[in-house]
Amino acid sequence: MQEATYRQWDEQVTNWIDEARKNILAHFHETLDVEQKSGRRDLVTQVDKQNEQRFVAHIRAADPDARILGEEGLGDDVQDDQGRLWILDPLDGTMNFIKQRDDFAIMLSLYVDGVGQAAWLYDVMGNRLFHGAKGVGVWLNDKKMSAPKNLPLSEGLSGLSGPLVSHDVDHMQAIAATSLGMRIVGSAGIAFTKVLRGQQVCYISYLRPWDFATGKILAEELGLVVTTVDGQTPTVLSYGVVLVATKQAQKDIVAMQTA
Amino acid sequence: MQEATYRQWDEQVTNWIDEARKNILAHFHETLDVEQKSGRRDLVTQVDKQNEQRFVAHIRAADPDARILGEEGLGDDVQDDQGRLWILDPLDGTMNFIKQRDDFAIMLSLYVDGVGQAAWLYDVMGNRLFHGAKGVGVWLNDKKMSAPKNLPLSEGLSGLSGPLVSHDVDHMQAIAATSLGMRIVGSAGIAFTKVLRGQQVCYISYLRPWDFATGKILAEELGLVVTTVDGQTPTVLSYGVVLVATKQAQKDIVAMQTA
Repeated sequence: MQEATYRQWDEQVTNWIDEARKNILAHFHETLDVEQKSGRRDLVTQVDKQNEQRFVAHIRAADPDARILGEEGLGDDVQDDQGRLWILDPLDGTMNFIKQRDDFAIMLSLYVDGVGQAAWLYDVMGNRLFHGAKGVGVWLNDKKMSAPKNLPLSEGLSGLSGPLVSHDVDHMQAIAATSLGMRIVGSAGIAFTKVLRGQQVCYISYLRPWDFATGKILAEELGLVVTTVDGQTPTVLSYGVVLVATKQAQKDIVAMQTA
Repeated sequence: MQEATYRQWDEQVTNWIDEARKNILAHFHETLDVEQKSGRRDLVTQVDKQNEQRFVAHIRAADPDARILGEEGLGDDVQDDQGRLWILDPLDGTMNFIKQRDDFAIMLSLYVDGVGQAAWLYDVMGNRLFHGAKGVGVWLNDKKMSAPKNLPLSEGLSGLSGPLVSHDVDHMQAIAATSLGMRIVGSAGIAFTKVLRGQQVCYISYLRPWDFATGKILAEELGLVVTTVDGQTPTVLSYGVVLVATKQAQKDIVAMQTA
C-alpha cells in the first residue's frame, strides 16, 4: 500500500476506533447483556454487536465496493478472499471484557485479493494502538516500531492457549517447557501485541480469521512470521492452530511437530 | 492492628515503595545483569538485590527489633514465625521484568507471632498499590476496596501456574476446565491482585512465603480465603501449592482433590 493511502485510511480508522473505545467505556460500570454463542465460554455482549454495527456502517460509507468479514456476522457472508476485504473483530477477548474489564482489543484490517494491506490493533485498556501497512511500517501510537530480536523459543516466553495446553495439542506442553515460561492472556489481540513488542517470542492458539488477520499484517511488517503450527501459510479465511513468532522460534516450534 | 498504627506504617512504607519503583524505572531501558539461581527460569537481577538491600535498611531503622525474611536472603535467617517479622519480595515476577518489562510487583508485609498485620502489594507498571491491615480494610491506591462477589469456580476465570497445569498437579486441568478459562500471568503478586479485584475467582501456584504472605493479609481482609490446595491453613513459612480464592471457589477446588 502507498504510504499516502495508508495515512488517509489511518486517519479515518483511528476515529472509528476512538468511537468504539468510548462506547466500551460507556458500558464499563454497568451489567452487560451477555449471550452464549457456541457455549459457556463463547460469549457476546451488546457492546460487541454495537461496535460491529458501527464499524460496518463506517466501512460501507468509506469503501462501498469492499466486503466485510466480522466476528458477529453483521458484515457479509464471505467465502473467498478476492477483491477488497475488511476483517473485523469489534471486541476481541469478550470473556476478559466481561470478567476482568481488562485485556481486550479491537482489530480491523484491509486485505486485497488475500494480501494484507493495512491493520489496526487497539489494546483498549492499555491505550496502545498498533497500526501500520505493508511496506510502510508499524507504529505503536505515534512511535515507529522496530523489529523484535530474532530469539529462539528457549530464550523467550511463550504465549499459549489454555485448552491447547491442557490437551497437549500439537506438543504444546513441550513448547511451554522449552520456552522460559508460558503465559495465557485470553485475547488473541493482546497476545499478538506481546509478540510485536518482543515481550514473548511466540503466541499459538486455535484462531479464526478475525483473530489473526490483523496481527498477521503487523507481525510480518516487523519481520515476524505467521504460519500454521506445521509451518504452512494460512489463508486469511483459515480456521485452525496458527502461530505468530520470531523466525527462530517458529522453526523451533515447527521442528517439534515432526520430532 | 490499630488504624493509627497502620497509617503511620503506611506513610513510611509507601515512600520506600516509591523509591524502589524509581530504582526499577531507572534501569528500565538498560541491559540487566541477570544471574540464575536454581535454574534458567529462576533469575535475579541487580535491581532485585538493590531493592531488597534498601528495604532491609529502611526496616532495620524503623523497626530494629523485627526480623526480615526476604527473597534474596539479605534479611535474616528466619526459621520460625515468632515475634515481629517483615516478609519481602523486592521484585516479584523477575522473568516478566527481564523479558516483558511488565507484570511484576513489589510485596511487603508485617506479621506478629505468625498473624498477618499489614500489607503492601504494588503493581509497578499498572501503578496500583493494594494496601491495608487486618481489621482496618484494604485500599487500591486511595480507594477503599469492597469484597469481591463470592462466585463459584464455574463462574469465574482461574489464575494458574504453567508447570502445574502441564503436569496436571492437584487436578489443575480439571480446575481449568471447570472455570471459565485459565490465565497465566507469571507473577504471584499480579495474580493475587486479579483475585482481590474480582477479575479471577482463584489463583493457585507453588508458592514460597514471600510469594503469598502479603497477598494473604489483603485477601483475608476482603473475605477471600488462602489455603493449601487440600484446604489446610498454611503457616506463613510454608512452601507448597497455595491458593487464594473466593470461599465458594475454594470449596470447589478442595472438593476436586478428593473426588
